[in-house]
Amino acid sequence: MIVYLSNFVIYTNAMYVVKADGRREEFDRSKIVRTCLRMGVPREVAEEIAAKVEQRSYDGISTREILQIVFELLSKHHHPSFRHRESLRDALSALRPKPDFEQYVRLFFREQGYTVLPNQIVRGRCLDYELDGIIEINGKKYMLEVKHHVNSHTRTGLEVCLAIYAKLLDLNKGYELGVSTIKFDGAIVVCNTKFTFHAIKYSECAGLILLGWNYPKEKNLSTLIEKMKLYPITYVKGFDKEVYEKLGDSGIVLLKQVVSAPVAELARVSGLDEELLSKFKEKAREILSKP
Amino acid sequence: MIVYLSNFVIYTNAMYVVKADGRREEFDRSKIVRTCLRMGVPREVAEEIAAKVEQRSYDGISTREILQIVFELLSKHHHPSFRHRESLRDALSALRPKPDFEQYVRLFFREQGYTVLPNQIVRGRCLDYELDGIIEINGKKYMLEVKHHVNSHTRTGLEVCLAIYAKLLDLNKGYELGVSTIKFDGAIVVCNTKFTFHAIKYSECAGLILLGWNYPKEKNLSTLIEKMKLYPITYVKGFDKEVYEKLGDSGIVLLKQVVSAPVAELARVSGLDEELLSKFKEKAREILSKP
Repeated sequence: MIVYLSNFVIYTNAMYVVKADGRREEFDRSKIVRTCLRMGVPREVAEEIAAKVEQRSYDGISTREILQIVFELLSKHHHPSFRHRESLRDALSALRPKPDFEQYVRLFFREQGYTVLPNQIVRGRCLDYELDGIIEINGKKYMLEVKHHVNSHTRTGLEVCLAIYAKLLDLNKGYELGVSTIKFDGAIVVCNTKFTFHAIKYSECAGLILLGWNYPKEKNLSTLIEKMKLYPITYVKGFDKEVYEKLGDSGIVLLKQVVSAPVAELARVSGLDEELLSKFKEKAREILSKP
Repeated sequence: MIVYLSNFVIYTNAMYVVKADGRREEFDRSKIVRTCLRMGVPREVAEEIAAKVEQRSYDGISTREILQIVFELLSKHHHPSFRHRESLRDALSALRPKPDFEQYVRLFFREQGYTVLPNQIVRGRCLDYELDGIIEINGKKYMLEVKHHVNSHTRTGLEVCLAIYAKLLDLNKGYELGVSTIKFDGAIVVCNTKFTFHAIKYSECAGLILLGWNYPKEKNLSTLIEKMKLYPITYVKGFDKEVYEKLGDSGIVLLKQVVSAPVAELARVSGLDEELLSKFKEKAREILSKP
């Protein structure tokens, strides 16, 4: 038996990684280097960590487990704050769609220096629409549409983008008819996950501006968050759901907001305990400090 | 105790019915009359049945149970074929979205005398779209979009209608650019359930033609089906799922199709047993015969 079977053994050095959606792809050390660089880790350290992760990986390892090893190594060898961190992708999907993620996106644009008006109802030709916000960039007005998926691997598809385009048209017809005073120059669609291929192709053609987890290739949501340290409150690990929700209810969704406000003020607006908030603030500060 | 409590007893004759979505509404005998009339029952019989149903109803009865009583009384007093019938609403949602319901809708329009082209891919300006069909009415071409919900109480909402409008625009831009040869005069959206208020309001304004369970008020899907006896195969009760699926796979989705084809032919295209098909056909014939 053994003699026969040995004819069928395939010798291979390939090690496969199982992704969250179940697909398998070959282990790629450079992806780990890029993940580390995105988190502000110097290249030297990133290369070193990627090599260590490769040593500890095995065929069939999940991307989630790999990320856990990366975080563990980063907290041990690079910076202790990594102990307190959720993965950014999971942190974004842990925000509630409303009011947290909408508020998060509005602050995200405000932090880039743009004027952002809050959510409001605007009349179109056929209907009134509740917009998630209006963003002004270089004197131009954009309708903001925010899509949040609790599952960080759900994609935003074509149908959503088609609907937003039709909404934009109807709003501008409303302006032409004089039922509204706002003329929009375009629409910005922000999503915590990826867009489908067709959603991207249509939007590029129709002139919708998309911002998602990994789109556009440069300056996408994840790279901008890392670059400007616009981490959501859910990025801090280890507190009860209630803590994040009470902060969110008070309009506090960025770690920057937590760090910049006095504990007494945070306690007043959120109704949370000062001691607990001090701990939260300490962890937030550690994360924002370095790298 | 009893003395005190008696002060709070509210005397009322109102009997409430619990709808499928959990809402309660007052028992309304005229609704039962209308249901019966829609099924081709003469008014006299309809009134008689409604009165009997009211006698047997109680506060908190479900609409489903009411419908069961109606069918039971109809089969006993009016026509035996009601024994074999599923409710039409449930029958439509029991069809598979593809290929059954799409095929059903195309045949539905063909039976009204319109020219219907099958599903196909048409190029727009930004993308290619797979259309569920193209319908010609008085020399005008309409893109057909079919929506099917397995839950017969799920509504089709605004987002769907906005997306269809944007798709129609993109297809016509494709025609203007010369990448397609079809100019559409509009879009027809057919759904086995109801539309939301906003979906209807938008579509009426934007010029989309909707056809749903109870829209438009006259000549909606349910009244047209009853009037023309365009019952789906799932209207016949009591066969295995496999039977309906094999018929559907063969493009047979109407009871009319079953009745008009020889059993040997049905057996050949579907691969089903002739004896079983004879029984199916017998029940179908009984339903189509009267009322």
